[in-house]
Amino acid sequence: MNSLEQLTSKSAATQTHEATTANLYWHGGKVTRSQKEANQGHRAAVVWFTGLSGAGKSTLANDLESILYRRGVRTVVLDGDNIRHGLCSDLGFGATDRHENLRRVGEVCKLFVEAGVIVLAAFISPFRVDRERVRGMVPHGDFIEVHVNCPLEVCENRDPKGIYRRVRSGEILEFTGISSPYEAPINPELRIDTNKLSCQASTQNVLDYLAQRGVL
Amino acid sequence: MNSLEQLTSKSAATQTHEATTANLYWHGGKVTRSQKEANQGHRAAVVWFTGLSGAGKSTLANDLESILYRRGVRTVVLDGDNIRHGLCSDLGFGATDRHENLRRVGEVCKLFVEAGVIVLAAFISPFRVDRERVRGMVPHGDFIEVHVNCPLEVCENRDPKGIYRRVRSGEILEFTGISSPYEAPINPELRIDTNKLSCQASTQNVLDYLAQRGVL
Repeated sequence: MNSLEQLTSKSAATQTHEATTANLYWHGGKVTRSQKEANQGHRAAVVWFTGLSGAGKSTLANDLESILYRRGVRTVVLDGDNIRHGLCSDLGFGATDRHENLRRVGEVCKLFVEAGVIVLAAFISPFRVDRERVRGMVPHGDFIEVHVNCPLEVCENRDPKGIYRRVRSGEILEFTGISSPYEAPINPELRIDTNKLSCQASTQNVLDYLAQRGVL
Repeated sequence: MNSLEQLTSKSAATQTHEATTANLYWHGGKVTRSQKEANQGHRAAVVWFTGLSGAGKSTLANDLESILYRRGVRTVVLDGDNIRHGLCSDLGFGATDRHENLRRVGEVCKLFVEAGVIVLAAFISPFRVDRERVRGMVPHGDFIEVHVNCPLEVCENRDPKGIYRRVRSGEILEFTGISSPYEAPINPELRIDTNKLSCQASTQNVLDYLAQRGVL
């Protein structure tokens, strides 16, 4: 059954033809991403925030969304909160599942980009291979990697949810930056040092970059 | 690491507080779905087209998107084409995988609805239990089930991709409506008889319903 759902969904063009033949009126054609972008006055893109826990990824993503919302820009924030509890609630935390988690996130990014939306994705995403895979899922130039950089000591000091404390007490065994590696981006589109910049300056840096790249 | 990504992503509020304390300026708060809806002048919803292969689900979804695009309405079309080749490319066609396929589609619907977008979902989705599960994933009233109804003989006669022919020749063993059941919606929000209505009338019916429900 389902192997055919694909085929069926591809049949719009043919159906259009058949329907026309039968004197029915079908619009048929799909609305493309560029049409949507033209309509709304900005491009779609994936802005991918990667960095240690506590570096400020989600805050930065949500802050940007607030600003872009006021400008009428279409955005979505994707983070562990809405992914791990929903789309990836069936996944565990072993190596395979962690890769699968980010693969699915990448596929969702693709759907949003195709719909003309700017994705603000906030994931620790410690491994280069996973980030590069997501980059490869969207058209060239549409993946903007933002390294939300902050020294471990500062992140640990912020420790907003007491996670680092639980790591140090041995309650959590594996944690990025401590017992598990974080592979910093080698050549990210943007690097934001959240221990040096205010949030205003941090978001402004991203906004400037998006404007410079013609996304906004 | 990843068990904590969830926690980290929830830490925005706390970080906001800490940052404020440090005389930094963080906007913090998330932009809600209702704010997005208010900004764009229409509500979000899931319009779920279910029906036999060849009944016209994808055509109807794409046709509606064309019309809504011209009205500046934010939409996305989800169908087997962009789901089975991407997000669910790891899934097979056994019973478990078919349920998982629609569970993920439901989760993606949720993300788009949260982002203020009207989802036009075209899936055979033959089983009530799967459709009801998706209904349960979005806020009450936001799931609009449209039964794209068309007699099997008509679908088989249209057979745009020659699928039914392959079923009849025995090349395809299991197919909805022939060797596998299609559980028609008992009380769908809308029923469109595509063998009786023109496409114009069909799309108009959906548009009228969306207006009546206050989505548009």
